[in-house]
Amino acid sequence: MIQIETNWSLVSDVKVSPNGFSFAGISAGLKDSKRKDLALILAPENSICSGLFTQSIVRASCVDICEQRIKNSSGLIRAILINSGQANACTGVFGIQHTLIATKEIAQLLEIKEEEVLMCSTGVIGIPIKIKDLIDNLPDLVEQLKTNNLNNAAEAILTTDLVAKKITIETLIEGRKVTISGFAKGSGMIYPNMATMLAFLTCDVGVDKEEWDKMISIAVKKSFNAISVDGETSTNDAFIGINTGKKIDKKFLSKIQSGIDIVCQTLAKNIARDGEGANCLLEVVVKGAKNNSDAIKIARSICNSSLVKTAIHGCDPNWGRIISAAGNSGINFQLEAVDLYIGNFQVLKNGKLNQYDSQKVTDYIKSKMQGEYLVDDIVRIVINLNSGQSKGTAWGCDLSKKYVEINSEYTT
Amino acid sequence: MIQIETNWSLVSDVKVSPNGFSFAGISAGLKDSKRKDLALILAPENSICSGLFTQSIVRASCVDICEQRIKNSSGLIRAILINSGQANACTGVFGIQHTLIATKEIAQLLEIKEEEVLMCSTGVIGIPIKIKDLIDNLPDLVEQLKTNNLNNAAEAILTTDLVAKKITIETLIEGRKVTISGFAKGSGMIYPNMATMLAFLTCDVGVDKEEWDKMISIAVKKSFNAISVDGETSTNDAFIGINTGKKIDKKFLSKIQSGIDIVCQTLAKNIARDGEGANCLLEVVVKGAKNNSDAIKIARSICNSSLVKTAIHGCDPNWGRIISAAGNSGINFQLEAVDLYIGNFQVLKNGKLNQYDSQKVTDYIKSKMQGEYLVDDIVRIVINLNSGQSKGTAWGCDLSKKYVEINSEYTT
Repeated sequence: MIQIETNWSLVSDVKVSPNGFSFAGISAGLKDSKRKDLALILAPENSICSGLFTQSIVRASCVDICEQRIKNSSGLIRAILINSGQANACTGVFGIQHTLIATKEIAQLLEIKEEEVLMCSTGVIGIPIKIKDLIDNLPDLVEQLKTNNLNNAAEAILTTDLVAKKITIETLIEGRKVTISGFAKGSGMIYPNMATMLAFLTCDVGVDKEEWDKMISIAVKKSFNAISVDGETSTNDAFIGINTGKKIDKKFLSKIQSGIDIVCQTLAKNIARDGEGANCLLEVVVKGAKNNSDAIKIARSICNSSLVKTAIHGCDPNWGRIISAAGNSGINFQLEAVDLYIGNFQVLKNGKLNQYDSQKVTDYIKSKMQGEYLVDDIVRIVINLNSGQSKGTAWGCDLSKKYVEINSEYTT
Repeated sequence: MIQIETNWSLVSDVKVSPNGFSFAGISAGLKDSKRKDLALILAPENSICSGLFTQSIVRASCVDICEQRIKNSSGLIRAILINSGQANACTGVFGIQHTLIATKEIAQLLEIKEEEVLMCSTGVIGIPIKIKDLIDNLPDLVEQLKTNNLNNAAEAILTTDLVAKKITIETLIEGRKVTISGFAKGSGMIYPNMATMLAFLTCDVGVDKEEWDKMISIAVKKSFNAISVDGETSTNDAFIGINTGKKIDKKFLSKIQSGIDIVCQTLAKNIARDGEGANCLLEVVVKGAKNNSDAIKIARSICNSSLVKTAIHGCDPNWGRIISAAGNSGINFQLEAVDLYIGNFQVLKNGKLNQYDSQKVTDYIKSKMQGEYLVDDIVRIVINLNSGQSKGTAWGCDLSKKYVEINSEYTT
């Protein structure tokens, strides 16, 4: 069960999404598999958009164009076109050309300005988009735009993902129903830095641009920037959050923030759980740190350690690797003060080995390793540094032979 | 063939080592396998010692004691005791106790001062050394000390290593024969930070402490600090270099430096090639950088990328992953200026795809993937940033299912 904070409830009906937005997802033949590969989000007039993008030096041109257009329009963005199959990164002049051609064409079809359209791409690096197929299918894509169609859009952005990642939550604020939806993709090349793979959040309540930028940034720091599958930051990472601009009293902003946090954390955990070849979600909580930033750095260092990840895969309660990965985070701490738990089993007390039944810890980890995709089956590691009041959480997954197989046998 | 710079020649006779040093390596029953697990190096009087140690916050006590003793004695160290089997890290009070007991005992047997003895440990973290077995075997260890015995010492420090890593080179300086030997261990948890796993260098020419510190530091930066197997810095990383203190004219220091560089780079490449589950050595050369530090950071980021490593494993010339890993190094560069080569095949020219036969590049990589351990079969990636005169090289290996198997099926 996904834990929802007070006042927000999970919407199980996949047809519900924030008021005013419409979505589409179709197959345009960009993927050889003929699976869906083209998505569109249309936001109502006066919507406010914020985006966070990859910090990699090597970025796809579409990312640069997203950033420019959000800035130039002060966030007044109406549509986001997303293709999967080809990432359109490192494609030379095609990078900009194809993005401009596609966004111009979709703007004409939607009768909006070209500058109000963003484009995101994901898939193989270095291969130009099959632009003719994409353009030929845009009229059909626009025709499919529907308010109850987020599901198809969420499906069309996937690449090596096993499952679609989406969530819708709602609440009542002064009698008015507020809905937030998010969907994301990501499975390999996951170590977001100030952004994530591709994730889109829509919200039918208005928050002004400056406030919205802050809120999005806070949520991303605690969600997409706290996950790792393989320590690789992609060329195309993008998180885009868009709200309808219909203003709400400032006193409700913290409630909206908690809703955004829930959506972002749920999507981020879904991405980690769907890590290439993964069998479980790994959650590392670091408590008792001097500040949040230290806590999250240590948590992330552990989630990102190949040796911790392979130990979890082997259901081996190898706390030596966990503490060694913490020691490599670059953050100073006193080993003599550290308590370490795997599940409910305390394995280290004041930095020293605690008496515990190793087989029971193995059984605990084993019970969380599922063939199926169950995001709530979490292997939890808790470290208390006992040297402060701050806390941070990061998420990752186990490292399996399947990861090596996926990434050595296929060009991605 | 190992490339030796002018004036230094490789010594193939394993019985040769620097004049004045003696070595021993025996089985003391610390490993269940009964393989050799206890080594000793005895240096002549007035030898000068420098050491570089792990930068991890979580360090074994023996590392602290090494550092203190080298500092307190101004480098006047006579003996190094090395055990494999148990790393003696995170073992609480046992960490210091066992190191002190063992070094005291060996000092008595060798009739030298306790403060002149260093101890290094490698093996499983969190498990105390089988100290009784170790102590009981020290007299036998001392009895085995011989000048022609480096081979056995090199064998006794191994853990998951498939092969011993050692090299001896020699030259003539004003009619005097100068010999440098080095041996090392390391296979997993390899991403040295200002140090390496365990490596020991002996040299029968004298260089004073200050100069020796500098020379060791230069060599380590270009060798052990330029390799990665899995991005994990160990709790016990140590590099110790010891020279006999028999002074040589300062004008020959650069020649000695080139000898130290050769020994360190050969050992470092051997460690990368013997990476857990590895089938080839990966060499990444970054040219045309603004400075050496930028070049090496980019080279290391590529060597450390799971996606590059799995692509190499799959013999896939996936330059998108290479350039993406370069983009994540944190170093700024212009993609539009980049030339990228895999072997002799230019795959990117001015940041754009160059015409090349993908199958030929695959065949090139495949030809370097050996079942056997052949350090000179190198998969070479060369990036020219075309924005400066500086250069840096890093070494790594492919990532295979075997790595996952080794690290998920055994506690290390």
